[in-house]
Amino acid sequence: MEVACLDLEGVLVPEIWIGVAEHTGIDALRATTRDVPDYDELMRQRLGLLEKHGLGMARIQQVIAGMAPLVGAEDFLDWLKARFQVIILSDTFYEFSHPLMRQLGFPALFCHRLEITEGRIIGYRLRQKDPKRQSVKALHSLNFRVIAAGDSYNDTTMLEEADAGILFRAPDTVAEAFPQYPSVHSYEELKQQFRLASERNLDE
Amino acid sequence: MEVACLDLEGVLVPEIWIGVAEHTGIDALRATTRDVPDYDELMRQRLGLLEKHGLGMARIQQVIAGMAPLVGAEDFLDWLKARFQVIILSDTFYEFSHPLMRQLGFPALFCHRLEITEGRIIGYRLRQKDPKRQSVKALHSLNFRVIAAGDSYNDTTMLEEADAGILFRAPDTVAEAFPQYPSVHSYEELKQQFRLASERNLDE
Repeated sequence: MEVACLDLEGVLVPEIWIGVAEHTGIDALRATTRDVPDYDELMRQRLGLLEKHGLGMARIQQVIAGMAPLVGAEDFLDWLKARFQVIILSDTFYEFSHPLMRQLGFPALFCHRLEITEGRIIGYRLRQKDPKRQSVKALHSLNFRVIAAGDSYNDTTMLEEADAGILFRAPDTVAEAFPQYPSVHSYEELKQQFRLASERNLDE
Repeated sequence: MEVACLDLEGVLVPEIWIGVAEHTGIDALRATTRDVPDYDELMRQRLGLLEKHGLGMARIQQVIAGMAPLVGAEDFLDWLKARFQVIILSDTFYEFSHPLMRQLGFPALFCHRLEITEGRIIGYRLRQKDPKRQSVKALHSLNFRVIAAGDSYNDTTMLEEADAGILFRAPDTVAEAFPQYPSVHSYEELKQQFRLASERNLDE
């Protein structure tokens, strides 16, 4: 009995903060966990920039609502859901991801929440420490086998804890730092890696 | 951060074994956990009946493929998925539920597997003991609040472990034995119970 755990940004949808940076012109918002591995440090930096530029929730949600899943992501997700139980493990926030999750048919998503007061993002609430690893552990406690795919540093504890880990469109630095995981770039290759990692024979 | 856990049969889809009983004319297959609370005893009885009548996997899958979700279930599930992370907790088997889950868009399902050899169902593999309670515990370990809804005896440990439990279309015997849970019969009432149980204000 197998669960597929997928990272969200970079795997199914674009990097949300990069999209916000592009639409607002605030270049410093382009930083991701690829650049700043310490997530709390990264988030304090981001919220400081929003505050400094007077950007509230409404404007950011407007930007995100104009984004779309990556080309091919919906077909890939349909393929995956027909063969595995799929849970998305992400370090994004429900308030940000909602319009993109809607376009994906709302698969189960484990992520975090923002603290919002009168339209201003005043902080964030992480669900727990090392949430992706903890989620894989929880699935193991339910006797599931877990196959996980992600693209970035914050996915590597999930990949490590999983029974099989796959890098998808990871930057060279990540792929080189974690040579133990197959590193692929197309959804067809990703399907093939899920097939190889599964204990069952999966039909095309 | 809240997860909605739903039973499958009786809540979103018809009782699968009753459907098989109706289509095959084997009345004894109508028994469910409502009648025989001990699940292993019930399953041994069911598999014995299939063997006795020479019914293989192909015939049963054919019957199940002709079934459909309960009227209103898809709309209810869409409503729920837009507001909670939804995980279906069921004592059915992936091999049985697949054609019905397809019609529901494959929400994440935690259930069991059958052991099949040359088209004959030779046994079953429960993922673990008390799986619905264990799933709620695992979600708690991830710091989720859990609101659960089910209809039968095998749901009551899930309801007990959850932060809020709801009975949906439960028989009177179950509703009377567990008066601590609100007992409702329509999807509109079920939505209302989820709203009441949620810590947030949920839009219509």
